Amino acid sequence: MAVYTHLAAEQLAELIAAYDVGSLLSAKGIAEGVSNSNWLVETSGRDGRGARFILTMYERRIEIGDLPFFLDLLDHLAERDCPVPRTIHDRDGASYRLLQGKAVALIEFLPGVSVDYPATAQARAVGQALAQVHLASQDFARSRPNPLDIAKSHEVLEQCGATALGTIDPALPDFVAKAASLCAAWPRDLPRAICHTDLFPDNVLMLGDKVSALIDFYFACEDAMAYDLAVTHASWSFSRGGLQFKPEIGHALLDGYEAVRSLSSREREMLPLLTRGACLRFIASRAEDWLNTPQDALVTRKDPMDFARRFQFYAGAGALAFALPN
Amino acid sequence: MAVYTHLAAEQLAELIAAYDVGSLLSAKGIAEGVSNSNWLVETSGRDGRGARFILTMYERRIEIGDLPFFLDLLDHLAERDCPVPRTIHDRDGASYRLLQGKAVALIEFLPGVSVDYPATAQARAVGQALAQVHLASQDFARSRPNPLDIAKSHEVLEQCGATALGTIDPALPDFVAKAASLCAAWPRDLPRAICHTDLFPDNVLMLGDKVSALIDFYFACEDAMAYDLAVTHASWSFSRGGLQFKPEIGHALLDGYEAVRSLSSREREMLPLLTRGACLRFIASRAEDWLNTPQDALVTRKDPMDFARRFQFYAGAGALAFALPN
Repeated sequence: MAVYTHLAAEQLAELIAAYDVGSLLSAKGIAEGVSNSNWLVETSGRDGRGARFILTMYERRIEIGDLPFFLDLLDHLAERDCPVPRTIHDRDGASYRLLQGKAVALIEFLPGVSVDYPATAQARAVGQALAQVHLASQDFARSRPNPLDIAKSHEVLEQCGATALGTIDPALPDFVAKAASLCAAWPRDLPRAICHTDLFPDNVLMLGDKVSALIDFYFACEDAMAYDLAVTHASWSFSRGGLQFKPEIGHALLDGYEAVRSLSSREREMLPLLTRGACLRFIASRAEDWLNTPQDALVTRKDPMDFARRFQFYAGAGALAFALPN
Repeated sequence: MAVYTHLAAEQLAELIAAYDVGSLLSAKGIAEGVSNSNWLVETSGRDGRGARFILTMYERRIEIGDLPFFLDLLDHLAERDCPVPRTIHDRDGASYRLLQGKAVALIEFLPGVSVDYPATAQARAVGQALAQVHLASQDFARSRPNPLDIAKSHEVLEQCGATALGTIDPALPDFVAKAASLCAAWPRDLPRAICHTDLFPDNVLMLGDKVSALIDFYFACEDAMAYDLAVTHASWSFSRGGLQFKPEIGHALLDGYEAVRSLSSREREMLPLLTRGACLRFIASRAEDWLNTPQDALVTRKDPMDFARRFQFYAGAGALAFALPN
């Protein structure tokens, strides 16, 4: 959560003038995104009746070369009725521009709030929306490999080193070996699509039980669809801190997904392994961030143990984690 | 800039239900305010046509006992057509509520952007709006002394100590004595009102040349009206860093002010001294913050030298700073 760059109102007004969206009425830096600066921008709109947008400035981690993939993907999915904000193109048709040497994009603002305590109807709707994205992305022309796949998770944990991992929690060093064996067993034959790969509750905006927007596609890449479902399962189906599994949420999520796209028996069979892989991906990145973030820094470090607990749950429960709740 | 507290969507929705503003549609933490957390909140509105608000959570520095003063002041000024956001009262008529043990208030959202490089027409409009506030506050029933008056500025600089001040800049230790002599010469006979005392460009929202909102009244207090004008003059009439005086901006500001409320000859005569006092107030608080903020903290420290340069300009120019530009 941050706004890393100061934009003068005059600069903002000039930027907005490059788009056919009316004139600048308001701009508030918003506390969202860790790699980007974001502003909630209001303009008079093309019709003078007002319009709102998210202006994103790409500060770090995101390669400008990847922007056409991310931004065109939003348009592609929105055109196919996925609940995804559109990219606003400038008067020359460009999906992003440069400002102060950094790339910026203007994205449609969609209403909705991120839930902290999802209800089953909400989890069901999220599963449906995810399956919709998978189907809609099948004819998307661009692709991008997953830079944070299981091999990378293993590599990251290995680079952290057992000693350093042990300073975070005595349970963490074991995950280097767990990642190695998961890496060896990883299935390569599952059907693929463009995946969100980070569909945590805070990346879903809801109005009541309806998904109004899936946001923050900056980890999107081509991967196994069932892996994306596994990430979503692991990030939605637990109480805070990964302390308790909520079977009814996990079930509603799968049920919603399958209402739109059925899982093959092979995909279903792989879910226990894929969810452990999903947990490892977040254990690895959080452990790395934890070790690289000074203790007194003002940013909140996310605890890798949160997903270590989820991993242990999946390892213990096996296929039972995905069975119908009693 | 910060959001210090996480509010779950469910908590937010419950809070919003205490007001007659429709249901919660969106809430974005915004990067404004250093002592408060702020969210830009959208609801369906009383009429279903949508409404927007700023939700402020008072985190520190602000005494809950002062809230009725700040929040009633907004209502008082808005009723008298000052460009100021209203306080939204809850269904029981309360201007603030408690949430997670902290006070929160719902404030009207007004459009507009803060300018970095004000034009003379904009400075003129700000002067007018400030005078409007001074006149409109004359019959405001509440009062609050200025906790950051010249005596306090002197005290703060003395407590920082010459040695510590010298570590920021070799020019700073001299300001302890300057504050002492200004304190002795400070006029006590100038006409008073409720003053904003912090009307920097970022506390003014503008639409073109029009002031759409004066915001952030959390330093408001009773003081000399000419002192408030002096603060505004010192914060608007210089290039960034206080490096260069912009006479046309200063003149437009005074001119706008006097179009609504004439200055007495005594007030005009005191402007050189009052502007130096205004500079000292910001030198003192910034020096204190500077010395109390670790160098590697992620918050931007404001340079006290910015206002030391402005002080030196006012000290050298005397009454000429307020004369008509050539």
